[in-house]
Amino acid sequence: MTLEWKGALMNRRDFTQAAGLATLGLLASTAQSSAQTPTAEAKAPRFAMLVHPGMVMLDLVGPQTVFALTMGQVHLAWKSMTPVGTDIGVNVMPTTTFANCPRDVDVLFVPGGLGGTTALLNDDETLAFLRDVGGRARYVTGVCTGTLLLGAAGLLKGVHATSHWYTRDLLPVFGAIPAGGRVVEDGNVITAGGVTAGIDFGLAISARLRGETWAKITQLVLEYDPQPPFQAGNPTTAGNEITQSILKLRATALEAARTAATRAAARLSR
Amino acid sequence: MTLEWKGALMNRRDFTQAAGLATLGLLASTAQSSAQTPTAEAKAPRFAMLVHPGMVMLDLVGPQTVFALTMGQVHLAWKSMTPVGTDIGVNVMPTTTFANCPRDVDVLFVPGGLGGTTALLNDDETLAFLRDVGGRARYVTGVCTGTLLLGAAGLLKGVHATSHWYTRDLLPVFGAIPAGGRVVEDGNVITAGGVTAGIDFGLAISARLRGETWAKITQLVLEYDPQPPFQAGNPTTAGNEITQSILKLRATALEAARTAATRAAARLSR
Repeated sequence: MTLEWKGALMNRRDFTQAAGLATLGLLASTAQSSAQTPTAEAKAPRFAMLVHPGMVMLDLVGPQTVFALTMGQVHLAWKSMTPVGTDIGVNVMPTTTFANCPRDVDVLFVPGGLGGTTALLNDDETLAFLRDVGGRARYVTGVCTGTLLLGAAGLLKGVHATSHWYTRDLLPVFGAIPAGGRVVEDGNVITAGGVTAGIDFGLAISARLRGETWAKITQLVLEYDPQPPFQAGNPTTAGNEITQSILKLRATALEAARTAATRAAARLSR
Repeated sequence: MTLEWKGALMNRRDFTQAAGLATLGLLASTAQSSAQTPTAEAKAPRFAMLVHPGMVMLDLVGPQTVFALTMGQVHLAWKSMTPVGTDIGVNVMPTTTFANCPRDVDVLFVPGGLGGTTALLNDDETLAFLRDVGGRARYVTGVCTGTLLLGAAGLLKGVHATSHWYTRDLLPVFGAIPAGGRVVEDGNVITAGGVTAGIDFGLAISARLRGETWAKITQLVLEYDPQPPFQAGNPTTAGNEITQSILKLRATALEAARTAATRAAARLSR
């Protein structure tokens, strides 16, 4: 098992990626490893992650951290190479455009962010990209409100899926079947709940692509042994008062999402 | 409770921050709210977060997401305004320099990243900044290997603290007392374990600064209801084979960290 993991590490040829992993401490020497034959490289998973203005940074970074530790190639795709803003004010630079992003990837991934997602639900360019890459990807995935974009692209018809808890009831608009569960797998479609669900999701993907032992090594590297100080992570444990306060604060944004989703669904069925 | 949360939201004057939160959906209208009197603004917590080359992005983004949702002012401080690289290849732009960062903050925070941390353990400029801000901050905090930097700055003498599981045994070098627990609080020093522990930590800080209800609202917004697909988040549950494989792969980096920490400790005691 150590050898399996190390073997893949030693055969990396993507220097940028390897430098990042060296930083995390997983590679003792990047330069040394580059001389090896690329046996495992051929198996390196490829990820196309949509990045979009208004996305929630943690929606992206949780899965991306796990994806990077599969020793995979991670592409951050947007319409252009201009930085996209996120909820926490940190800008993310795309690494590729829709036009240049590899078409045959193992994983298509869409992060959420309520405002950002709503703005793209009827955006032809984004939906065409998702439809094209998603139609060929080994796994079609998304977390949080990002799964609405998969729906708008027509990728969730008749599929069990989830979303952020406050947008899950919009999924049927796109013909999807809302499902309970933090990570929902239906065929090659894997979706997850809001924001932090991306970490649980990422580990599930890691296990699919690299095996359970690899996923467990990743989990221990990230010390993912969660111990929330409170029990308020879903509407049931949080209780009605806290849940309603969020629904009230987001009423306008949720209404806008519903309007945009309904319009997108009408376009889909034309 | 709804009113308390909403009241603070309605009194935000930091447009950039508010725009981010509007994106997350917590503010229905940024422009509208700016006209209010700044009653709650006076209480807005201030955060100084070190950013450094080689940091683990998730170490930063977990806590930063929670900090931003306190409606606080978040400063990302580095030596200069040049972007710093991270483990996943995404660059982060500092928002301020050590020289310009506010000195009287509620929270000083240091993220980890084994290589990046090691490189700074004997860096006078960084340690002087941490010592200065940490000496006045209401809370001195760090996660993952970032807590070693707090130690090197002399901020952990006689204090119970933690770190990433594989660097926790280095803490005594700085006079700290290694403690079990994912989030360790000792006086005004709050430290947490590796990478993902930053989310649990962030919620603990949110509760201290804004109260438990606020922290629970934040937890539900982030749908932090963790359900790891495997039980491998700490060395005990992961088992000896997985633990040893990581220690072997990181042996060189961990030895470098030990050497740098020992040197830093010798400088401290001079």
